[in-house]
Amino acid sequence: MSQKGLFITLEGVEGVGKSTNLQYIHALLLDELQVPVMVTREPGGTPLAEELRSVLLQPRAEHVNELAELMLMFAARAQHLHERILPSLRQGTWVLCDRFTDATYAYQGGGRGMNTDVIASLEQLVQGDVRPDLTFLLDLPVEVGLARAQARGEMDRFESEQRTFFERVREGYLKRAQLEPDRFIIIDAQPPLVAVQAQIRQALLSRVQK
Amino acid sequence: MSQKGLFITLEGVEGVGKSTNLQYIHALLLDELQVPVMVTREPGGTPLAEELRSVLLQPRAEHVNELAELMLMFAARAQHLHERILPSLRQGTWVLCDRFTDATYAYQGGGRGMNTDVIASLEQLVQGDVRPDLTFLLDLPVEVGLARAQARGEMDRFESEQRTFFERVREGYLKRAQLEPDRFIIIDAQPPLVAVQAQIRQALLSRVQK
Repeated sequence: MSQKGLFITLEGVEGVGKSTNLQYIHALLLDELQVPVMVTREPGGTPLAEELRSVLLQPRAEHVNELAELMLMFAARAQHLHERILPSLRQGTWVLCDRFTDATYAYQGGGRGMNTDVIASLEQLVQGDVRPDLTFLLDLPVEVGLARAQARGEMDRFESEQRTFFERVREGYLKRAQLEPDRFIIIDAQPPLVAVQAQIRQALLSRVQK
Repeated sequence: MSQKGLFITLEGVEGVGKSTNLQYIHALLLDELQVPVMVTREPGGTPLAEELRSVLLQPRAEHVNELAELMLMFAARAQHLHERILPSLRQGTWVLCDRFTDATYAYQGGGRGMNTDVIASLEQLVQGDVRPDLTFLLDLPVEVGLARAQARGEMDRFESEQRTFFERVREGYLKRAQLEPDRFIIIDAQPPLVAVQAQIRQALLSRVQK
């Protein structure tokens, strides 16, 4: 294994079990692979980027321009990537991140229908050649995920979108996975949690050798 | 005069008298030209964009990544331009804006030394072909402006920069004016206020006929 930490991301639509499985992957990295790991999330991950997360997620009366939303996502990402993620990776600390740029392609590209060339140009500007080393996509039929998310209570500005929006988000994610099959691991998130985690464990350990 | 409102911006470094002269130009537009006018500012101008202004201007311990700052400026601008400025202009309401994209070239380009090609590409992405019709640049030697700003009291995150920073900002503004002499009106802001305002009045009335 190289000196540099690995950059692992976890993606999926609402209600897919990201939080629970993030903790599970974290434990696998610490206990089974015994690597130093920093857990973080997007949008967010630094005090400034967390402020932007609040701005982005809070429901508001004002119509949010799509380009403004996209630029805000990448502003938060620039801060997070350059001030926290890259310094960690350079020190050899692995980074486990709850959502990253694939979510932008899925939500703003798939969900909102923005031109993915625009997203790609901002990705290049902000990230240069930095991409995750490994991405887990928790995949679930939209109605199952939304029912779970609704059972959890109050919805943020994205969670309040219509079901067709989330269908497009899911398709956006699956298209990303198709474009980069070596980076993506698609996890079927429908079975009981133990079975989902068995898939995750097997995939992680087969991809990343100690 | 065309149906569409004119888009007028006011630019200049700290302490140059922007607030006072913004009010003066506003009064000229209302009283002498008798046009409907909306006065606004950047960063800011809508509730969301004003939240971003606070995020941008507040002094903070965290180092702010330059690209994050630049993207934030354009995120706020996308919201302001598409949700407020353009709808006003389309209705025939003139827009008088305290700072716009020339400030990004001056502060992030000149002051922080960012690549102006990057700024230009974000300008194109967010604004398309929209540019101000007329820009007043209040120009003053940096030491005079800073002494005025300091006398006013507490400094925000930009105002706390070093004097050499503001020298580069001023040069950035003057370079913008040189590139687009038809759009820019450079106002010498050193004389007493009445003399400054006489310059503004003459320039405005000669450029804009009722």
